[in-house]
Amino acid sequence: MAVLTREFTVRIGADGAMADITGRVGNYVSDCGLSNGIVTVFIPGATGSVSTIEYEPGLLKDYPRAMERIAPSGVDYEHHKTWGDDNGRSHVRATLMGPSLVVPFIDGKLTLGSWQQITAINFDTRERDRRIILQIMGE
Amino acid sequence: MAVLTREFTVRIGADGAMADITGRVGNYVSDCGLSNGIVTVFIPGATGSVSTIEYEPGLLKDYPRAMERIAPSGVDYEHHKTWGDDNGRSHVRATLMGPSLVVPFIDGKLTLGSWQQITAINFDTRERDRRIILQIMGE
Amino acid sequence: MAVLTREFTVRIGADGAMADITGRVGNYVSDCGLSNGIVTVFIPGATGSVSTIEYEPGLLKDYPRAMERIAPSGVDYEHHKTWGDDNGRSHVRATLMGPSLVVPFIDGKLTLGSWQQITAINFDTRERDRRIILQIMGE
Repeated sequence: MAVLTREFTVRIGADGAMADITGRVGNYVSDCGLSNGIVTVFIPGATGSVSTIEYEPGLLKDYPRAMERIAPSGVDYEHHKTWGDDNGRSHVRATLMGPSLVVPFIDGKLTLGSWQQITAINFDTRERDRRIILQIMGE
Repeated sequence: MAVLTREFTVRIGADGAMADITGRVGNYVSDCGLSNGIVTVFIPGATGSVSTIEYEPGLLKDYPRAMERIAPSGVDYEHHKTWGDDNGRSHVRATLMGPSLVVPFIDGKLTLGSWQQITAINFDTRERDRRIILQIMGE
Repeated sequence: MAVLTREFTVRIGADGAMADITGRVGNYVSDCGLSNGIVTVFIPGATGSVSTIEYEPGLLKDYPRAMERIAPSGVDYEHHKTWGDDNGRSHVRATLMGPSLVVPFIDGKLTLGSWQQITAINFDTRERDRRIILQIMGE
């Protein structure tokens, strides 16, 4: 049993834009020398999240619309009074979604469905470079 | 320390219907020979999720109503234009909920509360057989 | 590779109130003797959740308002008919958020962002003491 840490950075647009990181996560897992285990995909920072999606252009528009229903851009946020920030909705959405995802791998391969990709989400109100940390554990 | 993989299939109704998989997960964990660790419960596919709930008939109705507020069935989804599918809401809900759950176990027993069950959720617009993958890690 | 279990209790207000548990989780991790791995933070019970947030007073008000949009306090819940309870919204919100969070650690330090805290959330309709279980795995 071993623990292996990998890290990379990905540039993601604003307000719920996404990046498909399946290829990079899958390559790090298949190249790490472990056969069976789990990979924890973690995004540091309070305005980012990680989940899975069928990564196609339609859903990249549908998903932010749902977030808009939960934490609309047009309402007042107390967070703006604390720091003079404009990203109250970003924080609320990220807390709802959570910053981490755990995916099993078997024989060096992620157990994702055929149409299921790992996606990193940036909820902040400006485009950002986001760090992604992979903690790979297994044998 | 060891990694043990288990897998089973469960039939689940459409549109946020659930299956209580606590018994099966708990049995696999208690029978695997490990005392302490974590089990990652993962559902492959982009329209399924795993979480916990007090599994009783009332909440099985209340929960889909909340999902309907976030990603309503009566609005247009860009996803439908991509593939001619009808399950845009299913995808949005599953991305929001996430495909995995991690539960600790101690002395071979899941650390769930007395009224807390592990539930697999099928958001797709038709009843489906869903695969559940358990990655059990511990010593 | 080792598995280490830690547990503590934290008192949290009602209806989406939060407690910042970053310090306690971080101390247990840094004091456990492991350098690299993951900590699973799990809250037993069907009305609690764990996530991350920039823990400041504004967001502690903004976040429950988003939950109110998803599972409002002023609507009927079938759950109330089952048990005579008043906390249908609490259950729906907790199922949506999930009961666990997995955070990597490197060199004994959690990989959180500078403004990102681990938060335990109590969705129940009364203030409660909530148990938090940490399963620390690594080497």
